[in-house]
Amino acid sequence: MIIDVRKNILIVGLGLLGGSYAEALHRYGFHVSALTRRQSSIDYALEKGIIDEGTEGVDPDMISRADLIVFALYPHIFIEWIEENQKYMKPGALLTDVTGVKCSVVYRVQELLRPDVEFIAAHPMAGREVYGVENSTSRMFAGANYIVTPTEKNTRDAVETCRELGLLLGFANVAELSPEEHDEMIGFVSQLTHCIAVALMTCNEEEHIERFTGDSFRDLTRIARINDSLWSELFLSNRDALLRQMDMFESQFMKLRDMIANGDEDGMRAMMRHSAERRARFDKK
Amino acid sequence: MIIDVRKNILIVGLGLLGGSYAEALHRYGFHVSALTRRQSSIDYALEKGIIDEGTEGVDPDMISRADLIVFALYPHIFIEWIEENQKYMKPGALLTDVTGVKCSVVYRVQELLRPDVEFIAAHPMAGREVYGVENSTSRMFAGANYIVTPTEKNTRDAVETCRELGLLLGFANVAELSPEEHDEMIGFVSQLTHCIAVALMTCNEEEHIERFTGDSFRDLTRIARINDSLWSELFLSNRDALLRQMDMFESQFMKLRDMIANGDEDGMRAMMRHSAERRARFDKK
Repeated sequence: MIIDVRKNILIVGLGLLGGSYAEALHRYGFHVSALTRRQSSIDYALEKGIIDEGTEGVDPDMISRADLIVFALYPHIFIEWIEENQKYMKPGALLTDVTGVKCSVVYRVQELLRPDVEFIAAHPMAGREVYGVENSTSRMFAGANYIVTPTEKNTRDAVETCRELGLLLGFANVAELSPEEHDEMIGFVSQLTHCIAVALMTCNEEEHIERFTGDSFRDLTRIARINDSLWSELFLSNRDALLRQMDMFESQFMKLRDMIANGDEDGMRAMMRHSAERRARFDKK
Repeated sequence: MIIDVRKNILIVGLGLLGGSYAEALHRYGFHVSALTRRQSSIDYALEKGIIDEGTEGVDPDMISRADLIVFALYPHIFIEWIEENQKYMKPGALLTDVTGVKCSVVYRVQELLRPDVEFIAAHPMAGREVYGVENSTSRMFAGANYIVTPTEKNTRDAVETCRELGLLLGFANVAELSPEEHDEMIGFVSQLTHCIAVALMTCNEEEHIERFTGDSFRDLTRIARINDSLWSELFLSNRDALLRQMDMFESQFMKLRDMIANGDEDGMRAMMRHSAERRARFDKK
């Protein structure tokens, strides 16, 4: 399938990401429909003109008319939704998602899916510290990465359509990784960083300390304002990769701690120079 | 001593901070002189008109004319400088500094100082990821904290003059802490965060991972571009407080790790909610 504007797109889950997809795609002229939990989200999206139609809950007719379905749900709700409602889908429909973990979702969904529809997974690496369709904006895709995670079950056509969707949405980089590579990478750059921020924000209860925080503390704890229901599910859905990354970090942190305890100035300086060099290279990208 | 513009101010160490002090104070009309390691820094400052006079090395006459001397040196150089050159100081001169650690510096300097001059320590909590007088600007003081750390040896007059200096420089908040309180606080909000950034930046050598970094990884590693000679000295000068803070963080991080390993969703969510609440309160300040 090549995406053309006569296609019918259904967004399931109209929150921050689902709403931002709707806004971008509606602007291109696609017919965009939406199903979500709360009618108030649908009302807001209709009023803003970012969807053509929508309703709370499930609408078999709306599902059966969709050529492309985008799932923007919590992982466990996504899988339940497929189990219960795939019977309504049009033969040949293409499914994609925005889920932040892949191995625990992609294989399960592909396994239970009807053979005449196809699921190609993707992770738009964009987000904000706020939630809901009311905060959605496709501007957050600018400069961000969009990762397609195909498996052996995917057709090349579906992969290409999914990549094209990433470009249409306005992502700066569209790339492909296996679900396993994706989960290891996200365990490091996103989940580990959130674990660090949460631990830092809660490890010292001295209230007066906060009065003196500078930019570095602020930077390291921005993401400590975390959605506990979403992130606890994401962490547990990627447990093995996340634990590997946490253990790598902890071991390096303790290596630095021991060098400080032992007054090993040469060792500390070597690690700091390595850190500064890596970070400088990174700024050039 | 009340600061008035007839006073003669000497900056020792004309780098990023010393240069920024010079710029702000010269603008107020003070006579500002400077001593530093390299003549090129003096030439630059004279050309920019942020000092009235200066030279590389030591100038007994310039030292003997100063009413207020600001030390912007590495901790061990600061102490050596005092030992060798305090004999040139004017009786009644007031000394202050910008050093990022206090206990290991303040008591030592006050102990070896002549009885007819006074050292009142301060820490301007401002900085940039760049160095040298060429990058100095007093704009970096706006919105930042300035901490005065008096001891039993200080007079109330000196403390008030030092506070007044912080206000003149344009700091948003001027506060007082004991050297011990200061070092514990800085061990947490500044040194621990730099240790975390360095460990995070060096714990995973997979080059391809950097291609997918998002804002959170960028935020947590901004300060990983670190000056190894300065920070290794600051860490070692505040070893006990820093190790306490590192151990508190590591223990909380491992608590979260074990909750993930054991699938303790309730525990994780409670820690995340606590984190989000603390960070939200913090944003209001």
